[in-house]
Amino acid sequence: MASYKAPLRDMRFVYNELFDYSEISSLPGYEDATPDLVDAIIEEAAKVCENELFPINRSGDEEGCTFENGVVRTPKGFKEAYRAYVEGGWGGLTSDPKYGGQGMPSSIHVMVEEMMCSANLSFGIYPGLTYGAYQSLHAHGTDELKDLYLPKMVSGEWSGTMCLTEPHCGTDLGLLRSKAVPNDDGSWKISGTKIFISSGEHDLTDNIIHLVLARAEGSPKGVKGISLFVVPKFIPKDDGTPGPRNGVSCGSIEHKMGIKASATCVMNFEDAQGWLVGEMNKGMSHMFTMMNNERLAVGVQGLGLAESSYQAAVEYARERLQGRSLTGAKNPDAGADPILVHPDIRRTLLNIRAFTEGARATAMWVARGLDLRKKHPDEGLRTEADDFIQLMTPMVKALFTDFGFDATNAGMQVFGGSGYIRETGVEQYVRDARIAQIYEGTNGIQALDMVGRKMPAHFGRYLRRFFHPVQAFIEEHAEDESMADFVMPLAKAFGRLQRATGYLAEKGMKNPDEAGAAASEYLRLFGLVAMAYIWARAAKVAMAKTDGEEAGFYQAKLGTARHYMERILPQSSGLFSSIMAGSKTMMSFADDAF
Amino acid sequence: MASYKAPLRDMRFVYNELFDYSEISSLPGYEDATPDLVDAIIEEAAKVCENELFPINRSGDEEGCTFENGVVRTPKGFKEAYRAYVEGGWGGLTSDPKYGGQGMPSSIHVMVEEMMCSANLSFGIYPGLTYGAYQSLHAHGTDELKDLYLPKMVSGEWSGTMCLTEPHCGTDLGLLRSKAVPNDDGSWKISGTKIFISSGEHDLTDNIIHLVLARAEGSPKGVKGISLFVVPKFIPKDDGTPGPRNGVSCGSIEHKMGIKASATCVMNFEDAQGWLVGEMNKGMSHMFTMMNNERLAVGVQGLGLAESSYQAAVEYARERLQGRSLTGAKNPDAGADPILVHPDIRRTLLNIRAFTEGARATAMWVARGLDLRKKHPDEGLRTEADDFIQLMTPMVKALFTDFGFDATNAGMQVFGGSGYIRETGVEQYVRDARIAQIYEGTNGIQALDMVGRKMPAHFGRYLRRFFHPVQAFIEEHAEDESMADFVMPLAKAFGRLQRATGYLAEKGMKNPDEAGAAASEYLRLFGLVAMAYIWARAAKVAMAKTDGEEAGFYQAKLGTARHYMERILPQSSGLFSSIMAGSKTMMSFADDAF
Repeated sequence: MASYKAPLRDMRFVYNELFDYSEISSLPGYEDATPDLVDAIIEEAAKVCENELFPINRSGDEEGCTFENGVVRTPKGFKEAYRAYVEGGWGGLTSDPKYGGQGMPSSIHVMVEEMMCSANLSFGIYPGLTYGAYQSLHAHGTDELKDLYLPKMVSGEWSGTMCLTEPHCGTDLGLLRSKAVPNDDGSWKISGTKIFISSGEHDLTDNIIHLVLARAEGSPKGVKGISLFVVPKFIPKDDGTPGPRNGVSCGSIEHKMGIKASATCVMNFEDAQGWLVGEMNKGMSHMFTMMNNERLAVGVQGLGLAESSYQAAVEYARERLQGRSLTGAKNPDAGADPILVHPDIRRTLLNIRAFTEGARATAMWVARGLDLRKKHPDEGLRTEADDFIQLMTPMVKALFTDFGFDATNAGMQVFGGSGYIRETGVEQYVRDARIAQIYEGTNGIQALDMVGRKMPAHFGRYLRRFFHPVQAFIEEHAEDESMADFVMPLAKAFGRLQRATGYLAEKGMKNPDEAGAAASEYLRLFGLVAMAYIWARAAKVAMAKTDGEEAGFYQAKLGTARHYMERILPQSSGLFSSIMAGSKTMMSFADDAF
Repeated sequence: MASYKAPLRDMRFVYNELFDYSEISSLPGYEDATPDLVDAIIEEAAKVCENELFPINRSGDEEGCTFENGVVRTPKGFKEAYRAYVEGGWGGLTSDPKYGGQGMPSSIHVMVEEMMCSANLSFGIYPGLTYGAYQSLHAHGTDELKDLYLPKMVSGEWSGTMCLTEPHCGTDLGLLRSKAVPNDDGSWKISGTKIFISSGEHDLTDNIIHLVLARAEGSPKGVKGISLFVVPKFIPKDDGTPGPRNGVSCGSIEHKMGIKASATCVMNFEDAQGWLVGEMNKGMSHMFTMMNNERLAVGVQGLGLAESSYQAAVEYARERLQGRSLTGAKNPDAGADPILVHPDIRRTLLNIRAFTEGARATAMWVARGLDLRKKHPDEGLRTEADDFIQLMTPMVKALFTDFGFDATNAGMQVFGGSGYIRETGVEQYVRDARIAQIYEGTNGIQALDMVGRKMPAHFGRYLRRFFHPVQAFIEEHAEDESMADFVMPLAKAFGRLQRATGYLAEKGMKNPDEAGAAASEYLRLFGLVAMAYIWARAAKVAMAKTDGEEAGFYQAKLGTARHYMERILPQSSGLFSSIMAGSKTMMSFADDAF
């Protein structure tokens, strides 16, 4: 029953109007990224997502992946869709042209990613992991390894994985037990068991390239003894075609709450041949090259599913006739009014929309940072962009997936009883969205990363990349009465964030539990302020255009901005109070009393 | 992997210490409800729930109900468990002794209900519906009907249903199309299709007694033309055994997100023989006799599942070794500390606990109202109790199920990746808890009931049953320094609630959309204050006992109370701001712009 149309108009607003696209298209290598080309790309991506991926989303959930004798089969239609995806060149959108990629900016990629997540998250995970593996290999592999693997990974002929987690260690990778023993030829023998490996085994590609964390013989204990290896399922022959089977196999697949069409595998490495990627014992930092990108991508998953849920809920709210408007019948010829007339339904829909549109713009803001960091000729600006990305990554991952999950639930709620029925298709969004709060580092870990690493880094330098533009915007518009409804709430919430930051910086220095206790609430407060700033900027752009040709679009933008300020941002006051309450109560609670 | 132990100690705290049990055991008919008997009952119920119902909870979810040729089969073990339940007499715990019930107070029932929901919600729905049907029939049926049906329903030999919803109408029952045509013998022929009928068909009992809303021939349109009928699956013979099959059959069962072992049926009535219950065209109000009770019971479902999720999460947090405490290793002999050392895990667990313990006490408060309303010799006090129940019902239903859902999610989050795996057992709590926000009137409808009906009723008389005791408690403890940490936040939040109430009373009178826009946020603000009041009272009781024999229990109670004030109640400030923002933004948003 659910349907999906890519929100192209809003994507154009964000790319062309809210931000200055010429800052991207003036970067060396991104000259093509003009509005025209962007239009062509996102329109084409929308077709793939709407027509190829969305139609196999629910059937993929019902069927799931199957495992038999070490072979994993994806649900009906996935192979064909994947072939179409590869033929369209989507796997290499932002990849290095040297290896066959199209070298497009992340600002474009982020829009395509959102559509993929909206249409079929399970499907999107396969190329998503390939891209992650591509990035680590591209950044740290030797030319020989890169020449061997990257062209096939960029084209999508081969897929990739990230093999980190083991049964006894996920967050705390220092405990890992997978071993690497050197061979005579410079390669390594990798042994160990990895769990929760997305796309570890499947039937979409001829080869699967695993990036594996393992401890080389003689390396130190803990995280400082972990190295990164590339371990192909089939060892490539000299002509680049898949050769002999390597000692890696899938032991089983997980039965999960959602993303059932994404194969989550137990992978057994038994003297599998692997090659070192980057430096010995630097595996953690090499892996994090892709983890940061993955975390942004996971944030976008929350956004994508929220958008699908919103669209389904709006459609239902227009069609479902039930009850009468509180202020008199709006649809007197029928037996009842559409439920869209009810304030509580409108509030629910606007809550979701204030998140999706705000998150879309915020994601673009961060993606622009990726582009600047990669391509800007000025090193100082590249460093600034990196600071900004470091700071925003945990916020985007955690806030977008928490809000995204809530949004899928809110959309489902609009359906009443029908929403709980699988055939309706919206409860799947909830189940699929749930994983994004967990993988690539739970949201609690993101919050700790923010307060423990990002906040204190370089004496608060990262924070300034965010605080300064917000402060400047507030000051610039302090006297602008037309903007008061947006700037005043922003300023108030920003003040709370500044005070909370000062408090945590001081207390956390003395007692790290103080920072830990407040971490999740601080991250959310930070995220609420970030989206408030983005919404205030969007309101300013929209305000100038509410009388023009597309008045409806801009009025809706302004209305949604207002809704954000009135009904979402006020949460900042409670969060502030909770942060300031400190850690004492939770830390003094007796362990055995839990 | 999950396990469950009934929280008997906390139930005793609530029944015996937080409230005065003698107010219940001094009511005529409830003389037996002394702490000793209560102990015996809840201990026995705990055994059934822990040993019979919990072990078939996850297997019931995996297997689900099956439908074949009109026959519905419950999962393995359900028949045996149901037999044990019936033999234990649990179905008739609070039912009228005249029909074989034990006539126990609701204050006891509410504890047993919580355990059932914790152990196996799907199972609990079968007897839950029987009890609902029993109540309507008991209140409105003729003696003849009651003598025929009630003994078997009380014993659990026969089960019951509530047949309200039709494909085109759920919330708005005025639209219903099911018809009743009179027979010559005073009975009726019922025809129509009902959907989402819990326990509509199954294999647990010899007969199923449907309470069906239908429109009698010639009755007016809308809700004022709806009557209530009893329609048995098998028409009882004179000797009380099931006779010929009636014209009612199950067309299919739903595939749902959760509660998969509870059969949710499409029921077709084709000239089925039925008998009028109560007065013609008063079906809606007769049905609401049970709806109010059902709504309280559904609220308790949120509580029950939150408790299970909490227990599983605590167990995992003690066992899972991962990372080190931020303030130095707590478990230096092992490779890592249990994750319980981390502030964010403790915060998460205390968030759940502040809800479960607060909700348990609040549910008892309302259940006591049910007992007073039923048995108190003073009519004035009975009316007061009814006022209080009317007011609290929508709050308990919506707040407990919203918080309950969030709590099951929070518990699952503690498990990291393992939580997403079905075998772990905790994602089921999330899927099962989700329905409680929807059925028996969505939580949006509860909020409208609260602001649209309960708030203005008798010029605010219902509200006074809540406002007066809270006000009195605050005044009584205004000078008590030891209580300041609890009474001050309560007073602040209560002030917000009073102002929001005044605002809505004034604005909502002029424009009902103003009340509708704020309804959900008002209900939550109300609920936060209600639980804050209960927590402040619990803190006072606990404070006097923190040096005694069970110091650990009371210190934990005090710590949890403090956590509630510090980390949950502050949400009231944001809710207040949102309420005061009014309805303009959402109501002026163009319909076609959604």
